[in-house]
Amino acid sequence: MADGGSVELDELFQPRCVAVIGASNRPGKVGTSLFRNVLQAGFQGVTYPVNPSWKSVSGVRCYPNIASLPDAPELGVVIVPAAQVPATIDELGRAGARGAVVISAGFREVGEAGAALEADVVRRAAQYRMSLVGPNCFGVFNTDPSVSLNATFSENLPPPGNIAFVSQSGALGAGILQYGVAQRIGFSRFVSVGNRAGVDENRLLTALGRDPRTKVILLYVESLANGRKFLEAARGVTEEKPVLVVKSGRTPAGERAAKSHTGSLAQSGRDQLYDALFEQSGVQRVNSLGDLFRSAKIFSTGLRMEGPRLVVLTNSGGPGIVAADAAIRNGLELPVLAPELRASIAPGLPSIAAVQNPVDMTADVGARQYREVLAALLAGDAADGALVIATPTGTMTGSEVVTSILAVRSSTEKPIVACLFGLTDLSEDARSLESHGVPAFTFPEEAVEGLGALARYHAWRTRPRTEVRSFPVDRATADAVLARARATGASVLPEYAARELLAAYGIRFPEVGVSRTVDEAVRLADRIGYPVVLKVASPDISHKTEVGGVAVGLADAASVRDAWARMDRSVRGAAPTARIQGFEVERQIVGGKEVLIGMQRDPGFGPIVVFGLGGIYVEVLRDVTFRLAPVRPLSARHMVESVKAAPLLRGVRGEGPSDVAALCEAIERVSQLCVERPEILEMDLNPLIVRPAGEGIVAVDARVVLAPTSRSEPSA
Amino acid sequence: MADGGSVELDELFQPRCVAVIGASNRPGKVGTSLFRNVLQAGFQGVTYPVNPSWKSVSGVRCYPNIASLPDAPELGVVIVPAAQVPATIDELGRAGARGAVVISAGFREVGEAGAALEADVVRRAAQYRMSLVGPNCFGVFNTDPSVSLNATFSENLPPPGNIAFVSQSGALGAGILQYGVAQRIGFSRFVSVGNRAGVDENRLLTALGRDPRTKVILLYVESLANGRKFLEAARGVTEEKPVLVVKSGRTPAGERAAKSHTGSLAQSGRDQLYDALFEQSGVQRVNSLGDLFRSAKIFSTGLRMEGPRLVVLTNSGGPGIVAADAAIRNGLELPVLAPELRASIAPGLPSIAAVQNPVDMTADVGARQYREVLAALLAGDAADGALVIATPTGTMTGSEVVTSILAVRSSTEKPIVACLFGLTDLSEDARSLESHGVPAFTFPEEAVEGLGALARYHAWRTRPRTEVRSFPVDRATADAVLARARATGASVLPEYAARELLAAYGIRFPEVGVSRTVDEAVRLADRIGYPVVLKVASPDISHKTEVGGVAVGLADAASVRDAWARMDRSVRGAAPTARIQGFEVERQIVGGKEVLIGMQRDPGFGPIVVFGLGGIYVEVLRDVTFRLAPVRPLSARHMVESVKAAPLLRGVRGEGPSDVAALCEAIERVSQLCVERPEILEMDLNPLIVRPAGEGIVAVDARVVLAPTSRSEPSA
Repeated sequence: MADGGSVELDELFQPRCVAVIGASNRPGKVGTSLFRNVLQAGFQGVTYPVNPSWKSVSGVRCYPNIASLPDAPELGVVIVPAAQVPATIDELGRAGARGAVVISAGFREVGEAGAALEADVVRRAAQYRMSLVGPNCFGVFNTDPSVSLNATFSENLPPPGNIAFVSQSGALGAGILQYGVAQRIGFSRFVSVGNRAGVDENRLLTALGRDPRTKVILLYVESLANGRKFLEAARGVTEEKPVLVVKSGRTPAGERAAKSHTGSLAQSGRDQLYDALFEQSGVQRVNSLGDLFRSAKIFSTGLRMEGPRLVVLTNSGGPGIVAADAAIRNGLELPVLAPELRASIAPGLPSIAAVQNPVDMTADVGARQYREVLAALLAGDAADGALVIATPTGTMTGSEVVTSILAVRSSTEKPIVACLFGLTDLSEDARSLESHGVPAFTFPEEAVEGLGALARYHAWRTRPRTEVRSFPVDRATADAVLARARATGASVLPEYAARELLAAYGIRFPEVGVSRTVDEAVRLADRIGYPVVLKVASPDISHKTEVGGVAVGLADAASVRDAWARMDRSVRGAAPTARIQGFEVERQIVGGKEVLIGMQRDPGFGPIVVFGLGGIYVEVLRDVTFRLAPVRPLSARHMVESVKAAPLLRGVRGEGPSDVAALCEAIERVSQLCVERPEILEMDLNPLIVRPAGEGIVAVDARVVLAPTSRSEPSA
Repeated sequence: MADGGSVELDELFQPRCVAVIGASNRPGKVGTSLFRNVLQAGFQGVTYPVNPSWKSVSGVRCYPNIASLPDAPELGVVIVPAAQVPATIDELGRAGARGAVVISAGFREVGEAGAALEADVVRRAAQYRMSLVGPNCFGVFNTDPSVSLNATFSENLPPPGNIAFVSQSGALGAGILQYGVAQRIGFSRFVSVGNRAGVDENRLLTALGRDPRTKVILLYVESLANGRKFLEAARGVTEEKPVLVVKSGRTPAGERAAKSHTGSLAQSGRDQLYDALFEQSGVQRVNSLGDLFRSAKIFSTGLRMEGPRLVVLTNSGGPGIVAADAAIRNGLELPVLAPELRASIAPGLPSIAAVQNPVDMTADVGARQYREVLAALLAGDAADGALVIATPTGTMTGSEVVTSILAVRSSTEKPIVACLFGLTDLSEDARSLESHGVPAFTFPEEAVEGLGALARYHAWRTRPRTEVRSFPVDRATADAVLARARATGASVLPEYAARELLAAYGIRFPEVGVSRTVDEAVRLADRIGYPVVLKVASPDISHKTEVGGVAVGLADAASVRDAWARMDRSVRGAAPTARIQGFEVERQIVGGKEVLIGMQRDPGFGPIVVFGLGGIYVEVLRDVTFRLAPVRPLSARHMVESVKAAPLLRGVRGEGPSDVAALCEAIERVSQLCVERPEILEMDLNPLIVRPAGEGIVAVDARVVLAPTSRSEPSA
């Protein structure tokens, strides 16, 4: 990746001098429209066409090469054939350019030779510490009037505004700009990242986070350059500015066969990983491009919805009901209005009005009631935002109700969105609302979706902050276990070693001892307490059950003796050559809930922790949740609460609650282990038993897979 | 409900003579705009204004009352004050009118007095066998050029087309007509049903089903007049025409406290009941008003998608990926293209084109490739429909690609939808596509949603038809059980009676016998087979466990003797006055999966059958599914397959499959029982044990609740 350029990427967004290499006069050529677009958008710097074939381009004096330009270009926009791009980058670099936007195609997307060419471009850009956008991209624009740069091949730009958009697809970028023009959605900046060889969404997030004109950042991504770095970049930005994302692209086939349960979950639940990533970074994921821009319209008002409580004001029942349904679906609440508030509103309304929430004022009311009731609903602490639905009828015109809404708009900080229905074209009225910070929508559902995202974003910004906990652990033991494994070259730790390692990190296992005689086994069982499990201990037997090497539910000394005799016979019969080190006697855990805590290390995401209720819930219902490690206390609790089977841990059918506090701590301890021990590739604690509240957890089985060779975190 | 009028409702949709009672010249009055709208829409019949205050209205001679009209009106549109409506209906009836559209408000929606007035209006309309629309409605229109009736207060009508729309909300109706105008969505007929006192969605479904100009029927409903009749009406229509619905309105508080588990599930899962109803009637439920109209645009082409296989053709990757994601979400498939097909396509494309599905031809192709490749993709049996995504670039204009798409459109019966993205306004190109049967959308997701619904509708029309099975049952026993219960006035059947009733309908229970002596108990147990359960049998003990009256897991004769002695002591101690009839010996069921089959009778929906996996799955995870009885074999199987825990019945973790065939039959038998025995209000078989394949089912517990008084199905 080309790592040059400034953090703010000013060389891309506000260059003083732009060279368009490959500018042309030939109709239909990208070089023709792009240079014309730079001129037409009224660029406030100076732009030079570069092309040895033309004396002037679009009436501007053209230069045969970069070296002959009268000024040093700060940014080069490159539209030459792919093969000439590396030399062009060199020329730009020599001329002192700090950035290059490579529109040209014919790189990685066309196969191996193209990929090699792309690598060459990246190398040269890095050498000159240039910011590289593309190749194979649609360009960059900045609507800031002090810049007015349109280095894209889109002729029509949406109006200036505060929404920045980063797209991994050029075509979608084009479509969306056109949509912005049609819907009058105001944009601040736009970048098509193309093949993303240089500047990626992570650098852009940071740069756009610092742009004072950008208040909302939209992303369209098909993959992330690096999930772990996205988390870091996005967390930095979402503290200040909302980031909304559409993530497309279905599960790619796993690159390597997963060796553990958690591994296979992480492969099949790849999209859930993205959900976890976006949730942990405060990024609002939306389901469709339509949602993205509708939500952006609401975010771009800059208003906050400081809680989920929505009040719906309407003069017709149906749209109110539709809005109420959508509000609940989108995680909003429709608070019951306090009696005093209802009493203060009711006198101004017809007797048949429903002073509930939605407040259905009925068709008899006029603009005055809209103003008075909306003001009353938002004045106190009854609601965090309002949806106003109005069907102008004989009692009021569209412009009257708009005036009412805007009067309230100017006296509150709470968001107001609107749906105007009517018998005549109300689009002028809608525009008038939107230009004063009241986004307007055709259908109530669309209005409510964005409000849901707005409330979620506020909840993110004001979430309780918890710090990653670092538990005191037995490092010496963990070091020893891992050193031993490295020495043997084992990739899967023997179970006892896995237990030792996890125990060193504070995960409790059942008490166990190894007996060499039957009397020793009984003594051990007497000490440990019944019921016990008896298991053969042999380095040569990996599937103990298959050789009759496991007996469970041994309730007393006699049963231990019986089981010992039977097992000794059966194991020696089934595995005559196995070295038998003895028989393990282990306390059998009775009662409690089985869960799985696992970890997988992903090349892009780093260590991922997975949690789910054990057995059927994980294996059949796939009821699991993921987080990128390190997992903070609050995230651990969210993990536990977010699975569908979570009520089982709270206690159902007369049972008491399970020890969720101990479970959360176990998740955090696993997180700590996988952050501190990068050589661990995958791990499962499955099952881990969560005992009743106050009694802690006990892991019953542990599996730890090490990286084949020494392996480090994705580079930071 | 007013039951007059014709099945086709021609008196509403194509009256030859319309009287507008309450027509006016006063600006802003509904009577003013409504009469003007009738004139302006170019009504092909004759319309008369009726109003004693005016000599002429909108230049047309006005009559003081209905009696003085020169012709008999076939339809009256009523806009007089509420109190005058009953008399107006009388006048219309006496004049021979066959239909009335009551726009006037002031009825049920304003309280009790209004409700009484409404009942009066209904009574009078029924007396004259008039079809009554409203009151409190927005009107009716029919765009058929031989009629051209606009009896609404909307001045702008959408263009003529083949979409009929029935709305339970006037305001939404108004909004949607406006949307239709803006989006050029063609409508055939529109009805705002208002308070739905007379004509309801069920009659309209039937009538619109018979209208040859209507090809798609859209419904917006907040409640259904009668769920059971909706099922019948809709099933009739959906065989021929697609019906799409938005159903809004959250769970109303249950009218009566539910007495059984199934009852409480049916209350809390009310929205799932609607899902079941729509599924059983072939009605496509969509999630939002936006979806409704976008899907309608696709359905209105009249094309069928005869399977779920979608091919996506694009010249840019991003939108293709977005479309692919959306296709999977919407139940469509993206088939892998056969090698021969790929080989036939590839030569015409650039070498870097991805001849997969999506077929990404890359930006280098022109309109010719669009035509050739699209034709090839749809010519054979590779796909059932196509989404064409095009970003016009230097290689082709919007109108060229439109020409290509339309060339293929005319040579295939498969649906084609389009997304055009571009650097310039392509709305004229999109319009051109739409006018020739290729719906166009801004975003790929929107295109794909409607195709999913189209494929689902075809699957419905071509579903395997199964007939309701009628099992031979022991009617005499069932009659006797119910007669006995009626005699005692019991509303909850004693468990033995519930078992007897269900056993008479073929539900198997564990073998059981009553013993009076301990020797008899052992003999019984020896015959039945171990393990057994021993239970005290007493009419005076309802909670057997509490008095120590239940012993489970008795594995041999000695255990039965022990348990008998202990139980005899404990029960006599705890309930000294209880009459002990003996001790039941019952085979204990070991192994198998617990499920629940239940039934609840709903006032509007009639008998509803519920199914879910027992215990946690039903109680905590609410993983249940509903169907309106009678349940056909195919529906029974769908019920079993549709719960999330269904894999457990197929066998997981090395278990074999459960006896799903027997389970389905049990569901159908429960369905038969509740259809044949309307006095049963609620019923639970919980748990019912599904044994391994071939071993059938055994119910362990049964609960049957009878209607307090004699009770019949919702009137047909």
